[in-house]
Amino acid sequence: MPDLDALFKPRNIAIIGASNRPLTIGHRIMTNLNRYGFKGQVFPVNPKGEPILDIPSHKSILDIGPDVDLAHIIVRNNLVAQTLEDCATKGIKVAIVNTSGFKETGPEGAELERELVAIGKRTGLRLFGPNCQGVMNSDPQVSLYSNFTFAEMIPGHVSMVAQGGGVAEVINNYFGMNRVGQRMYASNGNACDISVPEIIEYYGQDEQTHVIVLHAESFPDPREFLERVAPVAEKKPVLALKSGITAEGARAVSSHTGGLMEADTVTDVLFDKCGVLRFASLLELCETAQAFATQNVPKGKRVGMVTNAGSPAIIVTDEAVKAGLEVPDLSPTSKAFLQDKLQSIASISNPIDMMATAAGIEYRASLDTLVGDPGIDSIVVCFMTPFFVDTLQIAEAIEQVAASAEKTLIAVAMTNPDEKPEWQETVERVRQAGVPVYYFPESAARVLVHMNRYRKLRDRPRLKPVEIQVEVDRANRLLKEAKPGLEGFLTPRDASALLTIYGIPLVREKRSENWDGLKTTAAELGYPVVLKAEAPSLIHKTDAGAVILNINDESELKNAYDGLNKKVGNRPELAFLLQAQLDPGLEIIIGGSRAPGLGAMVMFGLGGIHVEVLKDVMFKLGPLNRSEALEMLEGIQASALLDGVRGQPGIDKMSVADIMLRISELLENHPEIVELDLNPVMAYPAGKQVAVVDFRIKIHQSESGG
Amino acid sequence: MPDLDALFKPRNIAIIGASNRPLTIGHRIMTNLNRYGFKGQVFPVNPKGEPILDIPSHKSILDIGPDVDLAHIIVRNNLVAQTLEDCATKGIKVAIVNTSGFKETGPEGAELERELVAIGKRTGLRLFGPNCQGVMNSDPQVSLYSNFTFAEMIPGHVSMVAQGGGVAEVINNYFGMNRVGQRMYASNGNACDISVPEIIEYYGQDEQTHVIVLHAESFPDPREFLERVAPVAEKKPVLALKSGITAEGARAVSSHTGGLMEADTVTDVLFDKCGVLRFASLLELCETAQAFATQNVPKGKRVGMVTNAGSPAIIVTDEAVKAGLEVPDLSPTSKAFLQDKLQSIASISNPIDMMATAAGIEYRASLDTLVGDPGIDSIVVCFMTPFFVDTLQIAEAIEQVAASAEKTLIAVAMTNPDEKPEWQETVERVRQAGVPVYYFPESAARVLVHMNRYRKLRDRPRLKPVEIQVEVDRANRLLKEAKPGLEGFLTPRDASALLTIYGIPLVREKRSENWDGLKTTAAELGYPVVLKAEAPSLIHKTDAGAVILNINDESELKNAYDGLNKKVGNRPELAFLLQAQLDPGLEIIIGGSRAPGLGAMVMFGLGGIHVEVLKDVMFKLGPLNRSEALEMLEGIQASALLDGVRGQPGIDKMSVADIMLRISELLENHPEIVELDLNPVMAYPAGKQVAVVDFRIKIHQSESGG
Repeated sequence: MPDLDALFKPRNIAIIGASNRPLTIGHRIMTNLNRYGFKGQVFPVNPKGEPILDIPSHKSILDIGPDVDLAHIIVRNNLVAQTLEDCATKGIKVAIVNTSGFKETGPEGAELERELVAIGKRTGLRLFGPNCQGVMNSDPQVSLYSNFTFAEMIPGHVSMVAQGGGVAEVINNYFGMNRVGQRMYASNGNACDISVPEIIEYYGQDEQTHVIVLHAESFPDPREFLERVAPVAEKKPVLALKSGITAEGARAVSSHTGGLMEADTVTDVLFDKCGVLRFASLLELCETAQAFATQNVPKGKRVGMVTNAGSPAIIVTDEAVKAGLEVPDLSPTSKAFLQDKLQSIASISNPIDMMATAAGIEYRASLDTLVGDPGIDSIVVCFMTPFFVDTLQIAEAIEQVAASAEKTLIAVAMTNPDEKPEWQETVERVRQAGVPVYYFPESAARVLVHMNRYRKLRDRPRLKPVEIQVEVDRANRLLKEAKPGLEGFLTPRDASALLTIYGIPLVREKRSENWDGLKTTAAELGYPVVLKAEAPSLIHKTDAGAVILNINDESELKNAYDGLNKKVGNRPELAFLLQAQLDPGLEIIIGGSRAPGLGAMVMFGLGGIHVEVLKDVMFKLGPLNRSEALEMLEGIQASALLDGVRGQPGIDKMSVADIMLRISELLENHPEIVELDLNPVMAYPAGKQVAVVDFRIKIHQSESGG
Repeated sequence: MPDLDALFKPRNIAIIGASNRPLTIGHRIMTNLNRYGFKGQVFPVNPKGEPILDIPSHKSILDIGPDVDLAHIIVRNNLVAQTLEDCATKGIKVAIVNTSGFKETGPEGAELERELVAIGKRTGLRLFGPNCQGVMNSDPQVSLYSNFTFAEMIPGHVSMVAQGGGVAEVINNYFGMNRVGQRMYASNGNACDISVPEIIEYYGQDEQTHVIVLHAESFPDPREFLERVAPVAEKKPVLALKSGITAEGARAVSSHTGGLMEADTVTDVLFDKCGVLRFASLLELCETAQAFATQNVPKGKRVGMVTNAGSPAIIVTDEAVKAGLEVPDLSPTSKAFLQDKLQSIASISNPIDMMATAAGIEYRASLDTLVGDPGIDSIVVCFMTPFFVDTLQIAEAIEQVAASAEKTLIAVAMTNPDEKPEWQETVERVRQAGVPVYYFPESAARVLVHMNRYRKLRDRPRLKPVEIQVEVDRANRLLKEAKPGLEGFLTPRDASALLTIYGIPLVREKRSENWDGLKTTAAELGYPVVLKAEAPSLIHKTDAGAVILNINDESELKNAYDGLNKKVGNRPELAFLLQAQLDPGLEIIIGGSRAPGLGAMVMFGLGGIHVEVLKDVMFKLGPLNRSEALEMLEGIQASALLDGVRGQPGIDKMSVADIMLRISELLENHPEIVELDLNPVMAYPAGKQVAVVDFRIKIHQSESGG
């Protein structure tokens, strides 16, 4: 467990480079600490030793009397190293290096940064930054605003860590403008030592943090991310936006923070494995964090609504239902109750449309009904502020219901609070009651959609990866002795042997070098058969015309053999492979590859155009468990095909999942395998054996000895 | 051209039901007209004849001296009819009926509403409403706020018409809070006379209206919509949100306004034919209207960016590129210029990242560069408001550039204007310069994506539908004499004859009733052949096992014939059809159906699972022109398949488009055809004849005589 208390809850802080000049960072941090009411002592350090903001300063940190927890360093980049040495000598625990001019500027800066890291390693001084903003903590016992921008922060339950300081400001200001309470904040710039995952883990331990917001541009150590973040995401929602997902965006990231481009798929599999909720929209991320901060996770996907204007509630309904939520009808008991309580012109269904004249008492009745209706999991309360209604009574009704409701409660206030103090107060009271307030109806629906996404992530079965009994030693021996061909591909013979060790069902097949051998083999396998030419230089056999299907008898076999000889007969190390021709089934593809710094990924998709044209595939990070394998089968767009369509039976998903688990195990056991394709695999209804028709395995050349 | 001047530019207004009681609509409209500074005279009408807001009132509208243009009617629903009679007698041109209690309440209310319509028809009095809010016009010569809600409206260029009053308020308040100038507004509730399309047409004639916003819940007369709105959308952007698109949403609409559910496909084809830009998000609709109000339509999809914070610009880049826009590198000239003007730490590419310290002069240099760079079509200027920067100078730079730039210019201001008056002023000055300002970076990207969608819609080739030479009389005769079978399907013989008249290429085929006939026919067609059993009760032949492929010789034909006889031999009116077996090609589907009240729709999709599982199809409203037919081929998700993949040649798109044009003509000429399927159609590369393998045509029973 990371101990970052000295960073987030320092007893005192030294500001090395404190200044009286208003436009400097050294001045700004002093001001911010003061303005936000920091509970500890602040020690300005300044070469002239003059008082800063009327606080006496020291010329060197070594001159300060008491022990110091945290130091801000705002000196020129080439002076940072010596300053760190001094901090270490003084026994300071954490240094926030605000100074820029390091890795983000090129090779020279990167060299300077390596020096800082070495000092930290040697002395035990932890570093935050460089090229960073700082940290904040709204805990009233700390009241820390150790950051050089300033957006008023209300104490609350959202904690954030952001790689991009600019995006962090956008989020901070959103929370400020919408009166969303925050807990802790960190933007650690180049992150040379204290890492983003470490900070998330620290937030995970903080009881007052209900939801964690992450802005990421790169993953310097994805394995660390996985190990630290996954246990946190099991306990509380982690909402993330990853920037630099297009080549153009990544180019900009790279010129921006010196990070490396990660393929977007890797982000997806990493977040998925961790249980991190990914967002494409910064607005939706902010709005969802706002709800998680004070509301319970909905227990299910059934949304109930009450409104004083019909058309906006219809937008909520459309948005919710489009995304897979339900807007069910109310129970007969609920309807009977409402019939009694509401005006006769009200529409007593879901949404409950009470018409513009509805007063607080009617809101109360409708909300109580939705809270009590066992068919409803979450509640959206919409209101306009008509001039003829006392809207404060509406706020009061919401307050009363919110005080005890365990269902998720969300408000849409379609008003301009600036037009009337009473409307301002109405909105503010609903917020104070812990009910998130949005302006656009669609926001409420989208927030509930994201909250339900989290519920599903959180409630995933957490099975252990299946243990598969395999003769790993034999497989290791085989790989050690293998002589891969061009581009590192195993020979078909070796690949087939390896897959067989892992119990992967290959189609019945046999190799021969000459016509007599083929003839005998074909008789053994039984017609119809498939004839394939194999050679190390033939990687895409089908594209090269080296696969002949539907051979029904010996004379057709002879024709096929002669034809292949003509086409590819001159290839070195040529061999012929005969396979039993399979009955038509559903063609699928199972693949494996490696996410850099992270581990093996397994891929699943349907054969043919589904992968190549429609890109309808799904990846997951290994090691897989059975429920993850099945999630992949159900995660592709065309998954209905696996269940059968138009009277066709579906396929046996368990046996396909079994192959995926075995491939996952194979990749875990043999890190020298960089790429693997089973393509096509023919899948059938239960009772008929799934079979791998073709495959290739690529191994890392320098480790393979090939 | 609709003359709605009496509604939107009345010289004077009578308020029938004016009141001194503050919480009434009759009081509120008086107040609003007064508060917004209506330029004409207001005549309160009140049974007591007492002064209203100190203005003398009349007991009856008939007592008013001068001619009156417009009347608001706010009397009880059962008094509205008589009031309308009085208005007509007085010579009033338009009456806004605010009163509710009509169609939206059920059959009794609907009857009352029909009475109003009848009075309007008889007397020539035009009706707006009932159950409606009213209209607004910010034209300084009119200053009309004839509406019972009040959101301060700044004069500008967005005109809106909304079916849902609640949604309209959300949009009005958004414009108010974001200082977006509006021109005219109308929410006509039940719309019993003056229609939404009529209002859009009126806005189309108004020079000061640059963009039109529509909120629709139903299309009472889609044909009117098409005819009135399409010509407007050619000249200026019409942005629309349609609610009630899910079954649940439609149910709520229906209880809300008494409209009928329309399938969402019909909305899509209607908007597409009109050139209306459809939105799924109300927020994005508002944001896009904001940009169209004052900015030019971008000439192309190349976006240039300048920023003082890297991470938000990366979000803009990701969003833009994901949606098909480009963020190209700058020209060498641009880069050389910037190298000279910006700090050495600035990143001189696209986005131009000038770092947080950038001042107005650097913004000016970068903006000038983007304006001058011929490789850039639109410009996004992003800025934070760092405490050490004079942000008013940034505003000044943007003002100067905006004054003459013809390129689309969009700003992202990542600041909380409430924190500092200077920041407030910065944002306000950028707005005043006609540059739309957004808070979230993603908003700028999405707005540009939508503006480019409009550009493509506007610039579509407007070809005439192709005229196809057909013996229409013969086709009419055929349809008149046809005896359709179960469910209204034409017999295969009639359908085949009809399609042949329209020049649609069917596969070579021949019918026989017995074995001898089949034998001879097969020899004529040449093996391989396909054998199908036909009977009126066999609608899905393949599902019924009544299609046998790959028949290679006479003995296989005999087997197939015997097998079919066993399976379906007892069906009445059984016949056998022999077809030449086609070479494998790409299976496609072409269909036709009718959008209620609108006309024929043509459908295109790929065969098999593409239609049934993936729903990857496209519809367009007829009559089609050639470019529309080709747009459909390119509009499906799997369109890459038509161009060929993995060395496979593509198909001849023109010949497929030709069949679609002929189907479109067929549907236009024969309204009794309600449904038509060509499935499958086998398509090939150019040079090989596309062929329809199977088809069915359903006609409207009562008109067909069948």
